Amino acid sequence: MFIILVYDVGEKRVGKVLKICRKYLNWVQNSVLEGEISDAGFKKLKLELKRAINDQEDSVIFYILRTTKYSSRETMGIKKGGDEMII
Amino acid sequence: MFIILVYDVGEKRVGKVLKICRKYLNWVQNSVLEGEISDAGFKKLKLELKRAINDQEDSVIFYILRTTKYSSRETMGIKKGGDEMII
Repeated sequence: MFIILVYDVGEKRVGKVLKICRKYLNWVQNSVLEGEISDAGFKKLKLELKRAINDQEDSVIFYILRTTKYSSRETMGIKKGGDEMII
Repeated sequence: MFIILVYDVGEKRVGKVLKICRKYLNWVQNSVLEGEISDAGFKKLKLELKRAINDQEDSVIFYILRTTKYSSRETMGIKKGGDEMII
């Protein structure tokens, strides 16, 4: 599956959250990562993030696309992320 | 179509960009909006954003889902956006 992850977390936790996410997904923009991930990988990512964030203050949203066949992406302005983007 | 919009723009332009986006989409999290939009609406949104951002500094990414049938969303931590979310 393809995941788009967006996070809005407290400044003290941003470094740790980004480090965890980068193990599984590609950074594309401030607080946004994306990429293909297996079910097992997604479970591990969520487990690690659960421990890292503060449930009362932070917010992480996962958009899960079971196929990228019906989706595409457009960028306006500069492209910040790498070229691994595949949808 | 369903759009997920993420933006990373200079502080001076954030207010204006958010104001434009909120005319068309639902705010869900810092720098993230989503929602159903028509082709015509999407064209107008892009036109307005094109005028508002600085092409050399700012980045806006549109994830375009022609159907939400194969996608879903999970939230971890607090839910910041409203309840209009429909995928």
